[in-house]
Amino acid sequence: MDQFDVIVVGGGPAGENVAGRCADGGLRVALVEHELVGGECSFWGCVPSKTLIRPGDAIAAARRVPGASAAVTGRLDASAALAWRDEMTSGWDDSGALPWLDEKGITLVRGRGRLASEREVEVETADGDRRLRASRAVVLAVGTRPFLPPIEGLRDLPPWDNRSATSAKEIPRRLLVLGGGAVGVEMAQAFRRLGSDEVTILEGQDRLLAREEPFVGDEVRTGLEADGITVVTGARMTKVVRRGVDGPVVATLEDGRTLEGDELLAAVGRRPATDDLGLDAVGLTPGRYVDVDDSLRSTAVSGDWLYAVGDCNGRALLTHMGKYQARIAADVILGKEISEQASTNAVPRVTFTDPQVSAVGLTEAEARDRGIAVRTATYDLGAVAGSYVQGHDIHGTAKIVVDEPRGVIVGATFTGPDVQELLHSATVAVVGQVPLTTLWHAVPSFPTVSEVWLRLLEAYGI
Amino acid sequence: MDQFDVIVVGGGPAGENVAGRCADGGLRVALVEHELVGGECSFWGCVPSKTLIRPGDAIAAARRVPGASAAVTGRLDASAALAWRDEMTSGWDDSGALPWLDEKGITLVRGRGRLASEREVEVETADGDRRLRASRAVVLAVGTRPFLPPIEGLRDLPPWDNRSATSAKEIPRRLLVLGGGAVGVEMAQAFRRLGSDEVTILEGQDRLLAREEPFVGDEVRTGLEADGITVVTGARMTKVVRRGVDGPVVATLEDGRTLEGDELLAAVGRRPATDDLGLDAVGLTPGRYVDVDDSLRSTAVSGDWLYAVGDCNGRALLTHMGKYQARIAADVILGKEISEQASTNAVPRVTFTDPQVSAVGLTEAEARDRGIAVRTATYDLGAVAGSYVQGHDIHGTAKIVVDEPRGVIVGATFTGPDVQELLHSATVAVVGQVPLTTLWHAVPSFPTVSEVWLRLLEAYGI
Repeated sequence: MDQFDVIVVGGGPAGENVAGRCADGGLRVALVEHELVGGECSFWGCVPSKTLIRPGDAIAAARRVPGASAAVTGRLDASAALAWRDEMTSGWDDSGALPWLDEKGITLVRGRGRLASEREVEVETADGDRRLRASRAVVLAVGTRPFLPPIEGLRDLPPWDNRSATSAKEIPRRLLVLGGGAVGVEMAQAFRRLGSDEVTILEGQDRLLAREEPFVGDEVRTGLEADGITVVTGARMTKVVRRGVDGPVVATLEDGRTLEGDELLAAVGRRPATDDLGLDAVGLTPGRYVDVDDSLRSTAVSGDWLYAVGDCNGRALLTHMGKYQARIAADVILGKEISEQASTNAVPRVTFTDPQVSAVGLTEAEARDRGIAVRTATYDLGAVAGSYVQGHDIHGTAKIVVDEPRGVIVGATFTGPDVQELLHSATVAVVGQVPLTTLWHAVPSFPTVSEVWLRLLEAYGI
Repeated sequence: MDQFDVIVVGGGPAGENVAGRCADGGLRVALVEHELVGGECSFWGCVPSKTLIRPGDAIAAARRVPGASAAVTGRLDASAALAWRDEMTSGWDDSGALPWLDEKGITLVRGRGRLASEREVEVETADGDRRLRASRAVVLAVGTRPFLPPIEGLRDLPPWDNRSATSAKEIPRRLLVLGGGAVGVEMAQAFRRLGSDEVTILEGQDRLLAREEPFVGDEVRTGLEADGITVVTGARMTKVVRRGVDGPVVATLEDGRTLEGDELLAAVGRRPATDDLGLDAVGLTPGRYVDVDDSLRSTAVSGDWLYAVGDCNGRALLTHMGKYQARIAADVILGKEISEQASTNAVPRVTFTDPQVSAVGLTEAEARDRGIAVRTATYDLGAVAGSYVQGHDIHGTAKIVVDEPRGVIVGATFTGPDVQELLHSATVAVVGQVPLTTLWHAVPSFPTVSEVWLRLLEAYGI
């Protein structure tokens, strides 16, 4: 039996981070991965999706600028974009990640890992089963996989999921997208701009990105529609079928309408990838999220040896939150006094559509649900000088959600082109609990979009 | 004699802000302006300069993106860029600002205003002199004008200044730029990208943007040189002459070298526009900055009635700092308990070159000069995923300057494309004095450039 201090099951960003930080702390670490080291994010998530989005975004930005638009006489080169995506994913080869593991002294064990008993992981490798034992901790970082809703015919298409979309070799002429969350809206716009003639998004709720502030869905819808994308909200798909072997996909809605496409991307959520992880061997339920406390330790397994970080604990399904939890878990394993603080109150998220959506912390509705005495301020992001020096037709909205008695911001949302870096100012304000009266002295540079902070504080009455 | 509560002399951004906020507070306000309401920034500064910079920037950004670069087959259209600049400056007509004054109930007095005695301003209007009296405060907000160094022949060219550059009707074939500060480097790159064949910057110090962290000047120089701009540092101009009436400008350097151009932009600093302001009538020295305390009140005039905001007090020569001081001064005049906190410790500034430079607070050298026990961390900004999903060849540096005993950031610098909005996260951290151990829980969204924060904190040892 192989002995380690820490065994990490799952080599995505969260697993890599916990492994790396534990190794930096002097621990002997094994990293178990049955697919690619780098995980969903590097190969089938954030990285390739952002790569597919960026060319259309850069062209759209240049087209908004008088003097620059004249230079944009050609079309987006989809094959160059796909080639760049291939470069960014190293052709779905993870050998680029291996020197880093070597450098850290982390032992990579390739194969499917399953909990066998307390502190023990059995790995099904190409050379047979291998049993690993952890003196200190086992960390689960196995992530999620796509959720497929029980729609008649859906499973048989088969539908595209995030993997098929981000690794597409061709641009479908007509794309149906089931689900108006982040993956759905991002991929819809990416493929439309990469050359799909017809893209249709179908969302069951009454707006896109329904968990965000209500104006978000409206503005993203306007942006998508301006690109020629059809958005259908408040409608459910009841049945879907592919005509013939390679024929079109025909989806039937509740009200009898039909939608037709060449491919259908199912992007309606995720479920934990914990079915085949040996959870039952330690008394947990396979297929469920692994509940953890603020030390990232399993709440249902005694002995303080089992941790879960990243998507598979269900706290906040975002790469950066998984990496954050990984850093915290590693520090806990290394004996530091630290705990997870961000996943319940200060989760930042960016949807890389045009307009972009960036938000952190609580929406107004969430804050009210938690019983916070909320007052908000909203301002037209396109009305600040920093926006209008970016070009014509820059639109967006900024909103802060303030815990009024405490005088601090508990949530913020920004929409508009390139609001992705603006977000961190709000994240620092939320996490730092910086009083509004102090924020008044944090001067935004002119002319930047960050000046919207001034207008928000003025609108709030500072 | 006309009676007001507050008389503001100078209708640039600082003057407008103090007038507007006092009027919002119910005071009767007069605004005295002898040029355009909106001032240097709106007509000959930030706004037109950023407009001239943006087209080249947007094209450069698109060219870095595989898939997008193929679409950029044409050239920047300089006439469209100049037309947009004309639109942004309303053709140097300030009538667009007047409804705002009306709405606020501010009385605009067009003419040159001079202090006549305590609380009294005499305005030389087109219809003769007019005497105004302020019951509460006179606020000076007259700004600065270009400083011309005593170089033989310079004044006679005449040289371009920020006004000639930002209002240029044609793109000179060859442009000499005297001064490698923000105005010099921004305009050099703007004109090069707008079509100047030859642009040369001459800077007396050994690097560009010499007040910033040392790497800043090197990186901006590399960016400018990549655009085909010639950068000469550590060299002084001793003489300059224009050959014939419309002939070339020939500059002679200390070492005997000569540089030739069609125009010479002098961008070597500013001096207070206080020569002709009646300062002597209240015991102050014309031509000097008006020293103020943290209430923005003159330190040398008794009676608490004279204020100076913006560039003319010399605290921090930036539009946003002037506007900030204006808000504070207005609140002081309105009787609130508040004082200026940012101008000495937390000045943000962005240089809109490619790569951009954004910085806030103290550089390492400044912090050490102040006796702060400093430790710093630096990271390659191009090495975070948020940078490489922006395209190829994204380079830059991030640095934080930490007051080690206090565990807070006192300065930060970011270079790279589009770091302008990233800056406000550092400004909030500096002003909010958010401990590094708290910043560790402010998670940057993946994949954004803001992730460099993580790397900086790790490099620091958090």
